[in-house]
Amino acid sequence: MYDLLSGLTVVEVSSFVASPTIGLYLAQMGAEVIKVDQIGGGQDFRRWPVTEDNHSLAWENLNRAKKSVALDLSSKAGRAVLVDLIRKVGVLVTNLPAGGFLSHETLAADCPGLITVRVMGWPDGSIALDYTANAAVGYPSLTGPLEDERPVNHVLPAWDLLTGAYGAFALLAALRRRDATGQGGEVRLPLTDIAMGSAANLGRIAEVLHTGQDRVRLGNGVFGTIGRDFVTRDGQRTMIVAINERQWQGLVRALDITEGLASIERERGVSFAGDDGVRFSNRDAIYALIEAAFAARDHADLAAAFDANGVVHSGYQTMVEAVADPRLVTENPLFAMSTDNPSGFAYPAAGALATLAGEARLAPAPAPQIGADSEAVLGEVLGYSASEIARLVDTGLVATTNEA
Amino acid sequence: MYDLLSGLTVVEVSSFVASPTIGLYLAQMGAEVIKVDQIGGGQDFRRWPVTEDNHSLAWENLNRAKKSVALDLSSKAGRAVLVDLIRKVGVLVTNLPAGGFLSHETLAADCPGLITVRVMGWPDGSIALDYTANAAVGYPSLTGPLEDERPVNHVLPAWDLLTGAYGAFALLAALRRRDATGQGGEVRLPLTDIAMGSAANLGRIAEVLHTGQDRVRLGNGVFGTIGRDFVTRDGQRTMIVAINERQWQGLVRALDITEGLASIERERGVSFAGDDGVRFSNRDAIYALIEAAFAARDHADLAAAFDANGVVHSGYQTMVEAVADPRLVTENPLFAMSTDNPSGFAYPAAGALATLAGEARLAPAPAPQIGADSEAVLGEVLGYSASEIARLVDTGLVATTNEA
Repeated sequence: MYDLLSGLTVVEVSSFVASPTIGLYLAQMGAEVIKVDQIGGGQDFRRWPVTEDNHSLAWENLNRAKKSVALDLSSKAGRAVLVDLIRKVGVLVTNLPAGGFLSHETLAADCPGLITVRVMGWPDGSIALDYTANAAVGYPSLTGPLEDERPVNHVLPAWDLLTGAYGAFALLAALRRRDATGQGGEVRLPLTDIAMGSAANLGRIAEVLHTGQDRVRLGNGVFGTIGRDFVTRDGQRTMIVAINERQWQGLVRALDITEGLASIERERGVSFAGDDGVRFSNRDAIYALIEAAFAARDHADLAAAFDANGVVHSGYQTMVEAVADPRLVTENPLFAMSTDNPSGFAYPAAGALATLAGEARLAPAPAPQIGADSEAVLGEVLGYSASEIARLVDTGLVATTNEA
Repeated sequence: MYDLLSGLTVVEVSSFVASPTIGLYLAQMGAEVIKVDQIGGGQDFRRWPVTEDNHSLAWENLNRAKKSVALDLSSKAGRAVLVDLIRKVGVLVTNLPAGGFLSHETLAADCPGLITVRVMGWPDGSIALDYTANAAVGYPSLTGPLEDERPVNHVLPAWDLLTGAYGAFALLAALRRRDATGQGGEVRLPLTDIAMGSAANLGRIAEVLHTGQDRVRLGNGVFGTIGRDFVTRDGQRTMIVAINERQWQGLVRALDITEGLASIERERGVSFAGDDGVRFSNRDAIYALIEAAFAARDHADLAAAFDANGVVHSGYQTMVEAVADPRLVTENPLFAMSTDNPSGFAYPAAGALATLAGEARLAPAPAPQIGADSEAVLGEVLGYSASEIARLVDTGLVATTNEA
C-alpha cells in the first residue's frame, strides 16, 4: 500500500466488481475505505469462485485493505446509521440505485459538499451488467474465430474494471474541485456509457459512420497493422504485433522474410516500407510468409530472435502457467504473499497496480472480516459511545463479527 | 467538458491508446493537456482506421480537447524545449522509455516536485502491447466457443483502456500527495502488471492456486451464476445474466420455467433457491430449459417480459446497430456532434465518460491540428519571446502547422 491518499476517507456500499474496485484502488493507495456491509455479507459475499467453506476468493480480493462495518440495512434504523456515516465522511462510493435511500439529493441535504460516485447500468437507471453492456455495444460481434459468425463474449469483465478505474479517477477529480471550491456533486458511471464512450474514443463510431459498415472480423488479428497469432514448429501458439516501423523491421529480420516480402511487393506493385496500412491490406500474403517462417522454427529459437530484434511477442499461456511465471507473478514485486485472508488460504496478492519508482511497496492487506471495524468506526468516526454501540449490537442493528 | 480539473496543466508525450487516454480523460474533465508531437505527427498519427485523406479516426478521438505543440524531437535542441516545458509544467504523461531522454531522474534533477506517469510494457522496460500482455496472462485461453480449444483474443484493447483510466487515477493521487507534501515521483504503469494484477484482484490467482487448475472454458457463459446467450424464436441472440436472487426469480417468472426447474430439483435432489452456485453446477439442465423457453417466443415478447421482471438482458448488436441505438448514442447526452475534426468528418463524439448529475456537459472538443498551439504554449507557458519562437520555427525545431 502506498500512501498517496493518506488522509482521505471514503464510505463504500457496493457489490460485485466495478464499484468495489473503486474502493480497492483507493485503499491500495493509502485511503481509508470504510465498506458498509449487510450483516452476514452482501449479495456478492459468496460470489464464485468459493472455497470448500464457501469463502469467496473473488470477494476477498476485491475488498482488500478496506474496513468493514456491518449494519442491518433492511431496517430503517440501520440505514440511518449508514446515512449518518456517509454525511460525516462526505464521500460515498456505491452501486445502489440513484433513486433509493442513498440518493445523492437526500444525502446531500444535510451534507452540501458530499461527493457521491455511483456505478449504474444504463444512464436512466435500468439495469445492465458488463456482459449485457458488451453485447449491446458490438464488441462480441467482432470477437472470435474467423470462420465462426457467432458473437463471442470476452471473459475478462473489461467494462467493470474500466468503470472501476475511471470511477477512482473521477472521484479524485471531484475531490480536487471540492478542495478548491467546496462544491460536491454526484458522479454517475453507467456501464453502457463507459462502454459506448470508449468505443467512440477508439474511433469506432467515426469509423462505422465513415465506412457505413462494421469491420470485418479478424479472429486474433490486429486491425490496421501486422499482428496475429502463429504456431511454432514445436506447437507454441504465439502472439506477435508490429505497431511501428522499428518493430516491423525487427520482425522482418527475426523471421528472415526480406526476400519473400520483396517478391510480394513486386507481384502486387506495392511497397511495405513505412506504411502499416499497405502491409495490413496485403496481410493474406504476409501472414502466409510468417506462418511458414514460424512452422520452420521452434519457439525458443524464435523468441530469442524476437528479443534480439525488438519484436513484441508472447506465447499464449494458461492462467496456471501465468501464475507460475516469474516475470508476471512469482518474482514480480507487484505481488506478495497474502496471509490472514478470510478464506484462510494464503497466496500471492497484488498491491496497487501502479509502481512508485524507488518507494517501498507494502504487502497487500487482507480483506476484513465482515463487521470487524464496526465498533472502531462508530466510535471514532461517528463518536458513538461504547454503551450506544453495545445497544445497537444488542438490538441487531450492528454486528461486529460475521457469526450469526 | 466538465471543469473538475481546471487549473491543472499536464504535458503529454505519447502514442497509441493507453497513454493518450490518460490525457484525454484529464482534458475532458477540464485540465489543460499540452500534447507534444513530433513535427508531422508521431508514430500513431496515421493509425488505422483512416479516411481517404489518411486522417486517423483513432488518433483524432484519442486526442480530443488537447493542445498540440510540434517539436523536432530527433534533434537535441528540440528535445531541450520539451524538457524545459515539462520542468515548467511539473506533470508529465508519457509512454517513452524510462531510461531515455525523458527519464524521471533526469527531468526531476531541475524539478524536484515533478510527477511522471509512465505507461510501460513489462516492469523491466521490455516491450509489450495489449495483445501480448493478454496472451501472457491467460484470458484468451478461456475465451471463445466451447468446442474450440484455440485461444481467442478480445478485440477491445481492454488492458490499454484500463491502464489509461488507472493512470489518470494514479496521476491525481500523486498530485494529491504533492499538494500536501511537495513530494513528486514517478508512477509506472506496466501493461503486464495491470493485466496480471487485475486477474489477481478478480480472485483468479487465488482460484488457480486453490483448485490447482484453470477454469473450464464456458463459451459465452458467465462463471458461477446463470448467464449465457440464447437465441429467440425469431433468431435474436440475447445475453441474459442473473447475478442475484431477485434477478434469478425474475428470470424464472419471465420464462415461466418454475415447473421445469422443480422437476430438475426433484430429479437431482438439489434446491436452486438462494444459491447461484447450485444453479451454476446444474447449468446443463437449466440452460436446456432456458433454450426451450427462448425458442418458443419472439424477442419483442421476451424482452418485454424481461423488463417487467427485472431481468438483465441485451440483444447482441453489431457496432452499426449500436451507433444507431438511441439509448446508446443518438439520444444519449454523453454524445454530441463533433465538427472541426482534423479529418473534416463530422460525427457524434463522447465527452467525459462520467456524468456529473445536474451539471451541463459541454460538447466534445476536437483534437488539435499538429502544432496548432506551439506559439501560444511556448509564449505563455515558457515565456519565449515572439522573435525567439520565430527563430525556432525558422530553424525547423518548432512547427506551427502540420504542413511540411
